[in-house]
Amino acid sequence: MSANTVSVLGLGAMGSAVAARLRETGHATTVWNRTAAKSEPHVQAGAQAAATVAEAVRASDTVIVVLLDHASVREHLDQVAADLKGRTVVNLVTTTPNQARETAAWAAEHGIAYVDGAIMAVPAMIGGPAARLLYSGDRPAFDAVRPVLETLGAAEYTGEDPGLASLKDMALLSAMDLMFLGYVQAIAMMRTVGVPAADTAKETEAWLAAMLPSGRHLAAIVDGGTYDTGGQSVDFDRFGIRSLIAASREQGVRADLLEPHQKLLEELAATGHGDSDWPRVIERLTIH
Amino acid sequence: MSANTVSVLGLGAMGSAVAARLRETGHATTVWNRTAAKSEPHVQAGAQAAATVAEAVRASDTVIVVLLDHASVREHLDQVAADLKGRTVVNLVTTTPNQARETAAWAAEHGIAYVDGAIMAVPAMIGGPAARLLYSGDRPAFDAVRPVLETLGAAEYTGEDPGLASLKDMALLSAMDLMFLGYVQAIAMMRTVGVPAADTAKETEAWLAAMLPSGRHLAAIVDGGTYDTGGQSVDFDRFGIRSLIAASREQGVRADLLEPHQKLLEELAATGHGDSDWPRVIERLTIH
Repeated sequence: MSANTVSVLGLGAMGSAVAARLRETGHATTVWNRTAAKSEPHVQAGAQAAATVAEAVRASDTVIVVLLDHASVREHLDQVAADLKGRTVVNLVTTTPNQARETAAWAAEHGIAYVDGAIMAVPAMIGGPAARLLYSGDRPAFDAVRPVLETLGAAEYTGEDPGLASLKDMALLSAMDLMFLGYVQAIAMMRTVGVPAADTAKETEAWLAAMLPSGRHLAAIVDGGTYDTGGQSVDFDRFGIRSLIAASREQGVRADLLEPHQKLLEELAATGHGDSDWPRVIERLTIH
Repeated sequence: MSANTVSVLGLGAMGSAVAARLRETGHATTVWNRTAAKSEPHVQAGAQAAATVAEAVRASDTVIVVLLDHASVREHLDQVAADLKGRTVVNLVTTTPNQARETAAWAAEHGIAYVDGAIMAVPAMIGGPAARLLYSGDRPAFDAVRPVLETLGAAEYTGEDPGLASLKDMALLSAMDLMFLGYVQAIAMMRTVGVPAADTAKETEAWLAAMLPSGRHLAAIVDGGTYDTGGQSVDFDRFGIRSLIAASREQGVRADLLEPHQKLLEELAATGHGDSDWPRVIERLTIH
């Protein structure tokens, strides 16, 4: 065994992409999957197939986990805790920050070096220039496996808290999700007068690209913390969002996606913050 | 009177910017505002102040309305319907599409040429290269006043339906609103581990810029109408959004902004569309 040995647990679309990339970059790669047939193409390309999780774990210094979810991670790793002792686990499964912290605590109890990862890419991007992966947890363990991880995509260490990679992933995915819902809302509204989605998407893309840098201004207001810059106010926005909701409904489009913003603004107005800069909504999001 | 005479009703921040720009570009400009003091700086710069709405309307061929809201538009124009006959009204007040259609119908009854407009700019941008204004309604009237309107910003005619300019404005503003909420959600989540809003905004901006072109893919799926391209499914997204919501709450951040997406996905799953491409959510938004 050397630092060049890697085992991959899980051969779904992402696990297969990870295993293939490791093999192609000269790593002695062992694969395991619940359904053994999925190992076949990897074996034909030169990987080793392990019959059990324990066998896979014992074959390598580094174990990369690409299973379905947190429950399957815990289920499979619990079986092989003794075998993992002294080895490094890199968990690329999408989990919440607390799930990552829980697995890290379990690993620490069992003498296992643990790095939690989050993949900001789809399987086809693995190993390519656009792939970016976030990592957090045990810094020396990360540094030791970094050369292996860099073959998958840009490897960014976010901090010792093992939940950080997941948190940053989830924060960025949340922003992306809301942006895509913006497309959906605009497309839905314009479809009511027969405008094809492609036309609305083109317009929306240009408009959002122009507005995107204003996020810096929003952030400056939040970091300032006084919400009194005299910019767009809660009351101004309440009026504006009410119009958007009315316009949507008039056209026969549900305004579900827009309503939470109005609710947050109404809460601020009801607590005397109608004159505040609108980004004060962030205070209503944070549970005290 | 000539085509070069323009009256501006309303001297709030936007009305003042419009009146100033018209005057600076050589138009004989008459202004009216409920509070007469706001006319003072315009008069000193060479505009005429009208004592009444009727006087303002009679002074010019083109009347540009920049009042507070739809109710004030109707209130003030109703008084001077007879004076407006044969003139052109350009209504730049933010209204819903149906309010624009209602004002257009009223104008038609009274022999008034009517163009509805929507301003995709803040007052400071008026007359500058980034200002863009949408117009809809009476095409010949629009063409006749276009040279005047072009001095305010790029003038885009969207169609005969007088509600179209407003609808497109509202659709694009809805998309922008959801994108900004994406920033807020990401910033709120990262603040729980002490990351300044500016840092999260910078990361988010880069990430959203990279993801923005995927709106075209989303639109192609919607225009295709079969939702069976085998891309990201409703069930995949349900799992993903559940994780985002769980992560947000774990960190002490309300997930109100993310919940409607989950609700729409659950509705699709409950009606047998779990395997569909996720953009099918647009069908749930459209009220049948």
